[in-house]
Amino acid sequence: MQLIRLFIRRLLFPIIIFGYLTVGMTIAAQPYALVIHGGSGNIDPQSVSEERKEAYLGKMAEALKVGEEMLKNGAASLDVVETVVKIMEDSPLFNAGKGAVFNIDGKNELDASIMCGATHNAGSVAGLSTIKNPVSAARKVMEESPHVMLTGKSADAFAYEHGLEMVDPGYFFDQIRWDQYREYVRNTFNRDRGQSIPADDDLKMGTVGAVALDLEGNIAAATSTGGMTGKYPGRVGDSPLIGAGNYASNLSCGVSATGHGEFFIRNMVAYDIAARVLYKGQTLEEAANEVINGKLKEQNANGGIIAIDKDGNVVMVFNTTAMFRGYINSSGEKGAWIFREE
Amino acid sequence: MQLIRLFIRRLLFPIIIFGYLTVGMTIAAQPYALVIHGGSGNIDPQSVSEERKEAYLGKMAEALKVGEEMLKNGAASLDVVETVVKIMEDSPLFNAGKGAVFNIDGKNELDASIMCGATHNAGSVAGLSTIKNPVSAARKVMEESPHVMLTGKSADAFAYEHGLEMVDPGYFFDQIRWDQYREYVRNTFNRDRGQSIPADDDLKMGTVGAVALDLEGNIAAATSTGGMTGKYPGRVGDSPLIGAGNYASNLSCGVSATGHGEFFIRNMVAYDIAARVLYKGQTLEEAANEVINGKLKEQNANGGIIAIDKDGNVVMVFNTTAMFRGYINSSGEKGAWIFREE
Repeated sequence: MQLIRLFIRRLLFPIIIFGYLTVGMTIAAQPYALVIHGGSGNIDPQSVSEERKEAYLGKMAEALKVGEEMLKNGAASLDVVETVVKIMEDSPLFNAGKGAVFNIDGKNELDASIMCGATHNAGSVAGLSTIKNPVSAARKVMEESPHVMLTGKSADAFAYEHGLEMVDPGYFFDQIRWDQYREYVRNTFNRDRGQSIPADDDLKMGTVGAVALDLEGNIAAATSTGGMTGKYPGRVGDSPLIGAGNYASNLSCGVSATGHGEFFIRNMVAYDIAARVLYKGQTLEEAANEVINGKLKEQNANGGIIAIDKDGNVVMVFNTTAMFRGYINSSGEKGAWIFREE
Repeated sequence: MQLIRLFIRRLLFPIIIFGYLTVGMTIAAQPYALVIHGGSGNIDPQSVSEERKEAYLGKMAEALKVGEEMLKNGAASLDVVETVVKIMEDSPLFNAGKGAVFNIDGKNELDASIMCGATHNAGSVAGLSTIKNPVSAARKVMEESPHVMLTGKSADAFAYEHGLEMVDPGYFFDQIRWDQYREYVRNTFNRDRGQSIPADDDLKMGTVGAVALDLEGNIAAATSTGGMTGKYPGRVGDSPLIGAGNYASNLSCGVSATGHGEFFIRNMVAYDIAARVLYKGQTLEEAANEVINGKLKEQNANGGIIAIDKDGNVVMVFNTTAMFRGYINSSGEKGAWIFREE
């Protein structure tokens, strides 16, 4: 009897208490985090009005706040990145969904992708022209089709059949993007006549993306874009390509990219960062820096990435003067920025 | 005077001779190699007639011979893989170009990609329906457009504008593929009525690919496919996706994949193998085995890859019962096979 009492007092109680504490601390220690981007580019800070800066920062803060509430309440990272990207797609400020850039024919063609780090399932669409939220179409492809990637009219039809909102192509129109398109056409015409014209860096920017780590420890990533002004019809950039503009794995990290897509495809930017973390043992920051400020810079390739690793480390790396970006995490850190200097 | 003579005899001569030998041996030691595949799948050896086996082996031997002659005479690996893949596209035996499988609408949609390991340039097309040789269209996108990937009608138009042969969609028709399509439709109908139907493994197979290392030490890879029978219109598999079904880098290796495309996309198969070689220091064989017989097998994902590393090591790894495959190299090794047992 005494032995049993002794056993309970000296051994069982401490074990139970220790167990509770360990489990409790583990639960408390599981961090959550959300990072977003709204594109990168070489922009002169003077060229952006205070009003427009405020609009960008306000919209990013809004998206982050929605995502933070969801994560805090235990939402899945997949739902969070889809919701947050939808907010940016719905805003004409960004080159994704409403406000997308125009292709060489003066039309909007929308690309998006989403990936779940827990299952490694992925969905992707390219060349949409009538689905309001391309990121949701990517998710439908992931969850409701036997495929990973659908393109063109069939992608539109598939998304519509699966209950997504269809809009007239005119819905995506934005005057600023149209003016950029007209400038692109004029510049191309003048270049063909031998005139030197200014670099068109900012015509390539504006892609949006989000990466989240949830309370279950699951990472998800989503990217959505209108591509680049003056692109050929049917051109696919890195955004809808798994491993190029988007990747997520609980084993390594989640990444969403923005920049000159062709270079991001050739360099497999998103998966290359994950592979360096996984196989080379680099930190997420080291890996992202070597790819964005090393490899890509050597190739004169502009752009950046946002990423989160399985421990909740948030990274935002770009080799341009600006990347619209922001993050929140469970330690209470939060913020949104545009230029490098800040 | 004597000192100078001594210097020439004892030092300069040996150095020059040693130099000649070293350079000579280096040139002689630069190996060349070519490996091809014509798809993988779980096939019962009994189900393939001797005549058809001979046809496959004969066509692969023909392709290898053409490639060998080119490599021996100093042709660039990029030209070799394009030429060799064209030979297989032109044969109705393989699911690429003529003889491609039919999508759910009973149409052929062709995908292809090509990548240069020296420059890391890449080109890709998806959803072609009128260009005779999709691999050449991918190369035109790489060399004549500012983009890496074009899809759908615009990809057809771009290739035609750049001088490639356009054919009536009926050109791609093959009776065996059409019968497979009809069987697929019947099976889908019966499955919808609750009947159990046989697995359709071999409906997914037949993709072609080639990887070459040339006398300059440059690696190139190309992949071409009709996709899988009954695929959705606009579906993109791994074949045209850089890093998934195709990758080439002089720094690591060249890879062409074949198999259940959706899994090859999620796992970034081609680039994952290269990344393991580059970052983990694995041999090409170890890397390919871990991905194909490890990762993919765990996911019940069928398929295989062919690959060559910068030292000319040739690897052909598959987790199915069969992969149409063959290779030649500068050591005089050569052969073509279908089943595993051989």
